Amino acid sequence: MSGRDNPAVRDLTPLLRPRSIAMIGASSDPTRGNGRTLRYLLQGGFKGELFAINPNRSEVQGVRSWRSIGDLPQAVDAAIVAVPGAAVAAALCECAAAGTRAAIVFANGFAEAGAAGAQAQRELVATARDAGMILLGPNSLGAYDARARSFMTFSSMFEQGFPQGGRIGMVTQSGGWGSEARRLAADRGMSIVQWVSTGNEADLNAGEVLHAMALDPGIDVILLYLEGARDGAQLRAALEAARVNGKPVVAVKVGRTQAGQAAVATHTAALAGEDRVFAALCHRYGVHRADSLEELLDVAYAASHAIAHTRMPLGPETVIVTHSGGFGVHMTDQAVQLGLQLPEPPGKTRRFIEEAFHGASARNPVDLTGQTQNQLPEFGRVVELLLEGPRFAGAVIFVGMAGAAPALRERWHGVLEDAARRCPGKWLGVTILADPQMAKRYEEAGYAVFQDTSRMLRAYAALVAMRAASMMAPETDKDLHAVAWTGSPTEVDAKRILGTAGIGLLDEHVCADAEEAASAAEAFGIPVAVKVVSADIPHKTEAGGLALNVCGAAATRQAVTTIQQRVRAAFPQARISGFLVSPMAAAGTDCLVALHHDEDFGSVIVFGAGGVMTEWLGDVSMRLAPVTEAEARAMIQETRISKALQGWRGAPAADIDALVSAIVAISKLRVSDGTPLNFEVNPLRVLPVGDGVIALDALIAAGPSKRRDS
Amino acid sequence: MSGRDNPAVRDLTPLLRPRSIAMIGASSDPTRGNGRTLRYLLQGGFKGELFAINPNRSEVQGVRSWRSIGDLPQAVDAAIVAVPGAAVAAALCECAAAGTRAAIVFANGFAEAGAAGAQAQRELVATARDAGMILLGPNSLGAYDARARSFMTFSSMFEQGFPQGGRIGMVTQSGGWGSEARRLAADRGMSIVQWVSTGNEADLNAGEVLHAMALDPGIDVILLYLEGARDGAQLRAALEAARVNGKPVVAVKVGRTQAGQAAVATHTAALAGEDRVFAALCHRYGVHRADSLEELLDVAYAASHAIAHTRMPLGPETVIVTHSGGFGVHMTDQAVQLGLQLPEPPGKTRRFIEEAFHGASARNPVDLTGQTQNQLPEFGRVVELLLEGPRFAGAVIFVGMAGAAPALRERWHGVLEDAARRCPGKWLGVTILADPQMAKRYEEAGYAVFQDTSRMLRAYAALVAMRAASMMAPETDKDLHAVAWTGSPTEVDAKRILGTAGIGLLDEHVCADAEEAASAAEAFGIPVAVKVVSADIPHKTEAGGLALNVCGAAATRQAVTTIQQRVRAAFPQARISGFLVSPMAAAGTDCLVALHHDEDFGSVIVFGAGGVMTEWLGDVSMRLAPVTEAEARAMIQETRISKALQGWRGAPAADIDALVSAIVAISKLRVSDGTPLNFEVNPLRVLPVGDGVIALDALIAAGPSKRRDS
Repeated sequence: MSGRDNPAVRDLTPLLRPRSIAMIGASSDPTRGNGRTLRYLLQGGFKGELFAINPNRSEVQGVRSWRSIGDLPQAVDAAIVAVPGAAVAAALCECAAAGTRAAIVFANGFAEAGAAGAQAQRELVATARDAGMILLGPNSLGAYDARARSFMTFSSMFEQGFPQGGRIGMVTQSGGWGSEARRLAADRGMSIVQWVSTGNEADLNAGEVLHAMALDPGIDVILLYLEGARDGAQLRAALEAARVNGKPVVAVKVGRTQAGQAAVATHTAALAGEDRVFAALCHRYGVHRADSLEELLDVAYAASHAIAHTRMPLGPETVIVTHSGGFGVHMTDQAVQLGLQLPEPPGKTRRFIEEAFHGASARNPVDLTGQTQNQLPEFGRVVELLLEGPRFAGAVIFVGMAGAAPALRERWHGVLEDAARRCPGKWLGVTILADPQMAKRYEEAGYAVFQDTSRMLRAYAALVAMRAASMMAPETDKDLHAVAWTGSPTEVDAKRILGTAGIGLLDEHVCADAEEAASAAEAFGIPVAVKVVSADIPHKTEAGGLALNVCGAAATRQAVTTIQQRVRAAFPQARISGFLVSPMAAAGTDCLVALHHDEDFGSVIVFGAGGVMTEWLGDVSMRLAPVTEAEARAMIQETRISKALQGWRGAPAADIDALVSAIVAISKLRVSDGTPLNFEVNPLRVLPVGDGVIALDALIAAGPSKRRDS
Repeated sequence: MSGRDNPAVRDLTPLLRPRSIAMIGASSDPTRGNGRTLRYLLQGGFKGELFAINPNRSEVQGVRSWRSIGDLPQAVDAAIVAVPGAAVAAALCECAAAGTRAAIVFANGFAEAGAAGAQAQRELVATARDAGMILLGPNSLGAYDARARSFMTFSSMFEQGFPQGGRIGMVTQSGGWGSEARRLAADRGMSIVQWVSTGNEADLNAGEVLHAMALDPGIDVILLYLEGARDGAQLRAALEAARVNGKPVVAVKVGRTQAGQAAVATHTAALAGEDRVFAALCHRYGVHRADSLEELLDVAYAASHAIAHTRMPLGPETVIVTHSGGFGVHMTDQAVQLGLQLPEPPGKTRRFIEEAFHGASARNPVDLTGQTQNQLPEFGRVVELLLEGPRFAGAVIFVGMAGAAPALRERWHGVLEDAARRCPGKWLGVTILADPQMAKRYEEAGYAVFQDTSRMLRAYAALVAMRAASMMAPETDKDLHAVAWTGSPTEVDAKRILGTAGIGLLDEHVCADAEEAASAAEAFGIPVAVKVVSADIPHKTEAGGLALNVCGAAATRQAVTTIQQRVRAAFPQARISGFLVSPMAAAGTDCLVALHHDEDFGSVIVFGAGGVMTEWLGDVSMRLAPVTEAEARAMIQETRISKALQGWRGAPAADIDALVSAIVAISKLRVSDGTPLNFEVNPLRVLPVGDGVIALDALIAAGPSKRRDS
């Protein structure tokens, strides 16, 4: 993270909605590469002034051709630099000299191809920055805006037609992936109004484009394909702008696995980053992270439809309406697994259902049985009754092939259209095997239309989760807790900081040697823990630097001697600052709370199972730091250890409120001069309700570190 | 489980492929219910003799109508009993008297509607069984076979046409779900050749139908929608028949969540059973369990295509071929997450790729870059080279819209068709945005065709997993280990049994009182554990019946007294048989191994994290018992605790071989008279490699019990 709180937002209009375009390297063959780009601009109906640059011709595809961009009668908004890699630098200099506002470089062979390419790429950036020119690429597949009709790409993505209208934007780090996504979206009737392939991101990156889309009043929903963030602060600012403006962002982020991360490095020279940090980013800004292209488009469809019809779900309370018991059961399983809530309908509604439909199940799922087809008006009335009160935020309705049968389809549509009209503001989803015309009529009536119940529920649940996350007020940086220490920080320094943050500690004595330790143990009069203090030994257990349940002075003296021997054997160079002697802590549940510095996104807070389990269980939750109490609570809920904290097999419930406070407090720790801080408390022992938490061990490591959460 | 090892398999031909059908309740309105059924039989071209039964008419839809089934000139194979619920019993009696071989009852209002309905249903069964007549239903939507053209259903599922051919069978407990699935399958060009809706399963159940399909040489792949198994032994026998005959079974099993299980009970009066036991069943027989209808059809498509083209993947080694880096990365992530393996291509092949495609990535994913379109012959050669050796069992190839462009699509298809011809026996999947005709040509060339890479990979990974599971030789019941005890079994009985099974135990003394315990502790001379022995106290920790790390005679005497007091307070009625005194066990990883009796499927073996974690972590794996060593090893691998067993943070690796032997041995324990056995070892402490395992606690509970694995 660069530390910039408000990254500059450039005006990208010259690139995104240019009024004039110069096509450098325009070819006369309309079926290939550069010729295709020019053809798209012509066929697509670019609304501004279009200039072809080709020194060898006087005319290209009917467009007058100029020798060089410097010869044009005007400076242009956007220049498409469609020349071979070796000629790009010179062409870009000419663009700069001609006052071009934005340039797109298609050629590859730059940073993704090795050191020489990286150097050449840096020179392109210097040229562009000196001239104040926006640079898209290199290795970009281009960009378009359907309103400006500026179809500046050499991808063959418009062979089936050009996009018309639409309120969905897309920014992609892979041109190939992004064009396939656009085409699949078009095939299902979704128009992407603005599309940008950022390629190597030498200058313009995905975050900045996303920010521009977040500020574009013609865009409702933003799709993102990301391999790695080149400027974490910029991406955060862009996502915050989208959140504040109520624009759902749906992202596919690759590099989830080690093999995937290796492939990312090969592909666009980006670093995929820590996958869970990206998940934390999504949490903070209410981004839905899709696993597949299909899921990306499903959620985008549901989101843009809900916004257009003012039917964004306001909560997780969902009613399932079916006339097939099998689908009722199946949808119930799926809804519960997706975190939706299925409360029962109000008693009055239940009674209406039971009277109107013999043998129906009036709970949730509401199964009106096969009689539905014979009682369509009552069916419509049931939908209306279910949605008229505050009980449900949305309804998922199974209609299936019954509603598509020629004899009845008009009547099915009629009753559902009426019901929708009477239930404004509620999310409505329907699965029906309708032809495209009928599907469109359901959409116009307010229904999101799917064929598969699972895909409908997944998209709907994504909307519910996105809205909940985006409504959660984020913690601000205003009351961060500045910390400091001198020299190499030890456990003692870390615990002192925790003390100032209000986190419970044991009564510990730092002792210089075995004699002092023995006296301290005697003074406590109960079994003690003895630990080595050394800035050079981060993990005391492995080093043998720890003795538990030590009783009395003699045993304590012996424990110190043994620890000294073991530590010297394991770490001969370690400087030993002393020995901590403390009473044994009361029983509780051991957790880990850690603050880590991520190079892309700054501080992240980690919570999970602690003690011996941290390493192998991988049971952690992560958020951008600082966090609010609500976020801390949600983090706990996401982990398995939360079950242990609730109390099990007769064990008392743990003091979750104190744990929440500790997570919040640790999430606010920062070094005042901006030095990256890594701070790990493990174990943080959570005692029974009312007894608080105790930090049993704590560790400060300066500088960025690898996260220890497997 | 009924204990039948070889449930009878009836000849279901009269129902599944009838040569003669009587339609009782035939109606003259071809657009509604019973009239629709008759119309389907007529329009669909039923090949046998068709009789209409309607006492009020002499002719129905052009078919001569008879007064009663008893008036027919012959006994029929199948009678469709399409009369109201109240008239079913009499109609069925007439069928029985007329020598009908199979009857289908459509009406609902039987067992799913309460006690009176259940009684009426029992009477139907009695009628059918007395006459040796197969009964399908009640509450069934019917059955069809596309070869016999026997379309015996009142569902409106054939309004878009009748199925032709196909080699996929489907058995469904929900007629509505099953007819929707059939329609969606037909929409994507997959023909279901035989389809049976089992409804309330008063007589014929899903397992028996599945068994018949497993024995039908015209069926390659079987689809199953299940709410609950009414006869576990029968279902097991059917799945084993499918496995032995190499027929993939793809199942949707609902009732995964508590809410879903409640909905199942409402729907068809079935009990959903323990979800993880069903997962164990799937493991044993290589069944793929799909989450959604879409996934069910994707896997069915991939399986039937692979069988038809002899391209079932023989292993998990997969090569990803792409010309878009983005898809290469994304598919890599997905493949790894799905458990596929991505080894590198052989050196010779890598060199060919690097020479032929400048800037290509020749590892795996193999990214040939955008140049692919200009070098299609080399692209084909790469595919061929990758698949010619034993390195890869299958290839997933991203073609996308590039391969669909009019100018190039014939050449893309040509090179891939050639490559496929040269690589018989290897699985080939391609994603391409082709029109249906072109997609069909790819299929004919040997490719499974998808639009979405995620769906392709998921279906392919399912085939890999199914084949691996179905090839794994199952453990037989031949060397089960018969066990016995007298009276109420205690920990001592359980440990004696474990000893006879070869599982490590501590040197334990059963002591009658505090004095005897004190002597035993003194004899050991090291810290001991003291535990109460009582058949009435299953969980000693909660009852305070346990003391650890007790040193010397005095402390042991005191420990016994304290245990006595606490146990008497907690369980005043408990009979105390004595006190176990043993040395403290060496450090290790605590696991749980348990044998449970499931009412549907018999003995299952459970492995997971033990000790205090069992309750809240839910980290368990389950299989049908007994298991082989390979299965036991796979169970361990599936859990998180396997990471701890591998050794972490310097801890030694655990003795996994000894753990595997213990799981196998416990999976073979049975009571010789067939009494259900529940046997739990927790903790089973796994010591470092070479030191074996020690059963620290063990519990026998007679009769079926709820599983204790959250």
